[in-house]
Amino acid sequence: MKTIFTKDEFSNFIKEVQSEHGYKNPIGFGICRVDLGQKTPTKILQASFPLTNWNENLGSASVFISALKEIGAEIDFSKSETVYSITPKFLESVLRKFTPFISETGGEKHKNIQVVDMLKNRSDLHNFRLVFIFEDAPLKSVEATYLKLYALSQKKAELRSLNLNGAFGVLQNVAWSQNKPYELDWLRDNEIELKIFNMYPNIDSVDKFPRFLQHIIPEDNTRILDSSKVRMGAQLAGGTTVMPGASYINFNAGTTGVSMVEGRISSSAIVGDGSDVGGGASILGVLSGTNGNPISVGKNSLLGANSVCGIPLGDGCIIDAGLPILEGTKITISADEVSKLKEINPKMEDKSVFKAKELAGFNGIHFRQNAETGKITAFRSKREVKLNSELH
Amino acid sequence: MKTIFTKDEFSNFIKEVQSEHGYKNPIGFGICRVDLGQKTPTKILQASFPLTNWNENLGSASVFISALKEIGAEIDFSKSETVYSITPKFLESVLRKFTPFISETGGEKHKNIQVVDMLKNRSDLHNFRLVFIFEDAPLKSVEATYLKLYALSQKKAELRSLNLNGAFGVLQNVAWSQNKPYELDWLRDNEIELKIFNMYPNIDSVDKFPRFLQHIIPEDNTRILDSSKVRMGAQLAGGTTVMPGASYINFNAGTTGVSMVEGRISSSAIVGDGSDVGGGASILGVLSGTNGNPISVGKNSLLGANSVCGIPLGDGCIIDAGLPILEGTKITISADEVSKLKEINPKMEDKSVFKAKELAGFNGIHFRQNAETGKITAFRSKREVKLNSELH
Amino acid sequence: MKTIFTKDEFSNFIKEVQSEHGYKNPIGFGICRVDLGQKTPTKILQASFPLTNWNENLGSASVFISALKEIGAEIDFSKSETVYSITPKFLESVLRKFTPFISETGGEKHKNIQVVDMLKNRSDLHNFRLVFIFEDAPLKSVEATYLKLYALSQKKAELRSLNLNGAFGVLQNVAWSQNKPYELDWLRDNEIELKIFNMYPNIDSVDKFPRFLQHIIPEDNTRILDSSKVRMGAQLAGGTTVMPGASYINFNAGTTGVSMVEGRISSSAIVGDGSDVGGGASILGVLSGTNGNPISVGKNSLLGANSVCGIPLGDGCIIDAGLPILEGTKITISADEVSKLKEINPKMEDKSVFKAKELAGFNGIHFRQNAETGKITAFRSKREVKLNSELH
Repeated sequence: MKTIFTKDEFSNFIKEVQSEHGYKNPIGFGICRVDLGQKTPTKILQASFPLTNWNENLGSASVFISALKEIGAEIDFSKSETVYSITPKFLESVLRKFTPFISETGGEKHKNIQVVDMLKNRSDLHNFRLVFIFEDAPLKSVEATYLKLYALSQKKAELRSLNLNGAFGVLQNVAWSQNKPYELDWLRDNEIELKIFNMYPNIDSVDKFPRFLQHIIPEDNTRILDSSKVRMGAQLAGGTTVMPGASYINFNAGTTGVSMVEGRISSSAIVGDGSDVGGGASILGVLSGTNGNPISVGKNSLLGANSVCGIPLGDGCIIDAGLPILEGTKITISADEVSKLKEINPKMEDKSVFKAKELAGFNGIHFRQNAETGKITAFRSKREVKLNSELH
Repeated sequence: MKTIFTKDEFSNFIKEVQSEHGYKNPIGFGICRVDLGQKTPTKILQASFPLTNWNENLGSASVFISALKEIGAEIDFSKSETVYSITPKFLESVLRKFTPFISETGGEKHKNIQVVDMLKNRSDLHNFRLVFIFEDAPLKSVEATYLKLYALSQKKAELRSLNLNGAFGVLQNVAWSQNKPYELDWLRDNEIELKIFNMYPNIDSVDKFPRFLQHIIPEDNTRILDSSKVRMGAQLAGGTTVMPGASYINFNAGTTGVSMVEGRISSSAIVGDGSDVGGGASILGVLSGTNGNPISVGKNSLLGANSVCGIPLGDGCIIDAGLPILEGTKITISADEVSKLKEINPKMEDKSVFKAKELAGFNGIHFRQNAETGKITAFRSKREVKLNSELH
Repeated sequence: MKTIFTKDEFSNFIKEVQSEHGYKNPIGFGICRVDLGQKTPTKILQASFPLTNWNENLGSASVFISALKEIGAEIDFSKSETVYSITPKFLESVLRKFTPFISETGGEKHKNIQVVDMLKNRSDLHNFRLVFIFEDAPLKSVEATYLKLYALSQKKAELRSLNLNGAFGVLQNVAWSQNKPYELDWLRDNEIELKIFNMYPNIDSVDKFPRFLQHIIPEDNTRILDSSKVRMGAQLAGGTTVMPGASYINFNAGTTGVSMVEGRISSSAIVGDGSDVGGGASILGVLSGTNGNPISVGKNSLLGANSVCGIPLGDGCIIDAGLPILEGTKITISADEVSKLKEINPKMEDKSVFKAKELAGFNGIHFRQNAETGKITAFRSKREVKLNSELH
């Protein structure tokens, strides 16, 4: 078992490991604690990461990989993801490589070393796993699924940027009680005893996914008034407030800036900085009415209370309270307003009746139903449109 | 105290008991653990059933009834429901009758015996009750109320099939904390002490009813993302998913097949297989706008986000997002579409403007508001309508 | 340290204290337990009041103030609020003044003495504070903020009657777990250890405010089916039911009579006796679309499912399901209906098209969208309007 004594030696060692034939840097890796099935201990019900690595800390990855090899594990870099058990030998091997850094470890420094160091005297190592993702392919393990959900929720990967196919197949549907997942079958087998002994757990939810707040610490200026409202795998920019009324943010959906969220952001939907999702407003997702087109809402837009947003919106748009705008909704716009809107949306056509999807992504549109004629109209919104070169 | 030694003897014994004058098989029965009031121990705050029997296990009922008689209890079969305390003698008497089955008890076998066997050495028998329901009449006890709610939620009784009158009068309004009910008066009396000692309980809800997941283990393919969203007494078919946004399923309401529920299913409302309740959609209940007519939604229908459904729907119907369809809403249908709709709804009238309630229960109707005229129209939905002889 | 022996002596003592130069009766005062920051113990994360005093028990206030002086504290009556630590000497001094009442203390009697008496042998006095509010000015301390929120939620102060400015600046954003607030920074610092040791807390919410039910015991006939739905600082009249679907009641908002709440009552909005907020209905708040005009809904009014209420309503009004009524919404009313409405709303103008805000606060108006023309109309509601001299 090789021991490294100096930082220079460490640098050389890492270069050496990484230059081995077939070596591949992982996209993500980390050690997680797993909750095993009460009835079927081979089932993994949840994976909790004290620390994740996502396109970062590649030296630590190399140490982990070399330690795995030292204890005789096979590393198949051609697989998209691999999961390993944690053994005392593995931990010892890792720590021997990290020797020159151990004295300065702590706080924000060398967190992978902190994890390994805390594990080294534990008697429950069978509850820990090391996972690598080498390729962003469909998911095969609970551990890799959680690692991708962490990457999204910790803002290390962009929304919609990861391949999440297979997640629903991989994850178990379990009963969650205060962060602890229970197999439904185990509850069934023990229902009589648990109820007679008054030990039946209080179940918070039954789902394949945990809640965001079971795993993620949000930024200081972020508020989530009800943990059930944000699923693990969602992403919330700092300054986001999620109210408890009719809101919901699904996995692979969220906000990219300050936002007041009182409505639903379905899976795949993204809301931009300064935009508000009013009470009960719905942003449809790829699985619910958008024909597979994910919806982005730009900056400084407003979805009124109980409105429905079925098309992507640009910046500075408004959908009035109660108004549903779906892809096929016919929107009437006066010549005057078309001309104002074309100034900021040069690609807009010159006509008077649009299908809403023909206005997808345009800026500064205010949608309204005329209360005297019932006609759904649009006009140049009075909201400020800050054209942002990154987004447009 | 009579002991039964063989299965034949047991059969004869049961026949004998059941042929006694005035004997009546119960509709439902079971032993429950009760939570008693902290201030008023005569108040029952909750009843938890390790096992329920509903039109089943009538032999066990006979054993229980004969044991009650042996220990001197009166059984009045003319009452709609009766509740008994559990005593060591009662348990001994029951087990003596079950002797020939005890060796094979366990797992899925002889669950009533398991319950009795687990109780026999307990020192807290004052927390257990045996309840029988002999007639489906208005409710008189907490125990019988819970037994009916279990029957609905465990799918042993059909939605709307039970008499639940009196439930609100019988049940106490209590503060629920992690499955434990507290009398509000007890909290008041002890508020100062509890708060100074930092032992004030975290209250999840204040209600007469508990939540579905406090008592019921759903099927493996059922998901409830927030336990507050489904009240005890609701019924969820396997494959139902209840999202946490604006959804809610009240008691005596629910689904009879695979369904995505992101909206409200009010008490008495039933949603059929393959039908979806979109985000924020409302299905009105008998207490909220349907003039006492309970609403069923057929199969393969869709309630769009933030729509309101105030009439029964058949199969393959759609209410567009944001659209309220109430009993009195005037629906305009073109002659062409009336003719298409009459093909699958022979009882439909031949006219052009309908009150929505005149379309109640019809199949294949798509409701929409014309975005250019504001007119609420209907036409033949493009959703597949699978005519089901059971339902139509 | 002065001891009082008789009730007469006590009366004289109080008069003496209150007649001291500069003495001022507090608007509110009380002793609270505080939760201190895990990382920064100088941060107060929450204040729990075993008992609050609001324009009441001014004798007890005088005792507290005199005891503070005896132990050498400065009382600056010119400040709007002041907060003091609790010491054994302070408690002793207070109890010496209360001597003539101690034997009769208990139950509903002399609750301030109960609080002090329970504190006297505690070893964690550093977790308790005494707070006075002398003037209803912008908030400066966590303790005074909680005291005002208690005053609102315990119905000791009317909704909208208190100055809550500064609350968001004073309160810390924390992670709540079963009534216990955690500093987010502490969670961050300890994330690795907490997760490896499987001690990561289950977070219910992240917010500056706690939930109503963490501090307040509602009246017996009040139901809150999901604690996340009512924020601390809300006020619920007895007979209010808050369903769990899409409802929410924010701080400084609520009900003043029996009400079924299935929708959102935004901060500053008030709903009158006998009025219902239908499933998913939204009452806009001063921060969300009402241009700073707080909305009151009168008595016996009904907001249909998924409606939006952007103007104050009088008694006996109805907004139909799904209908948004905003300040600028144009409402067409026939001459006949204008005349009927003028009978009960003498200030109503004589015209046919109104902006909704011109109808603000009027009684007996039923708002509807004509399903054949799309026009939003209003007419004399068939709901009973009980004109109430207090409100009109």
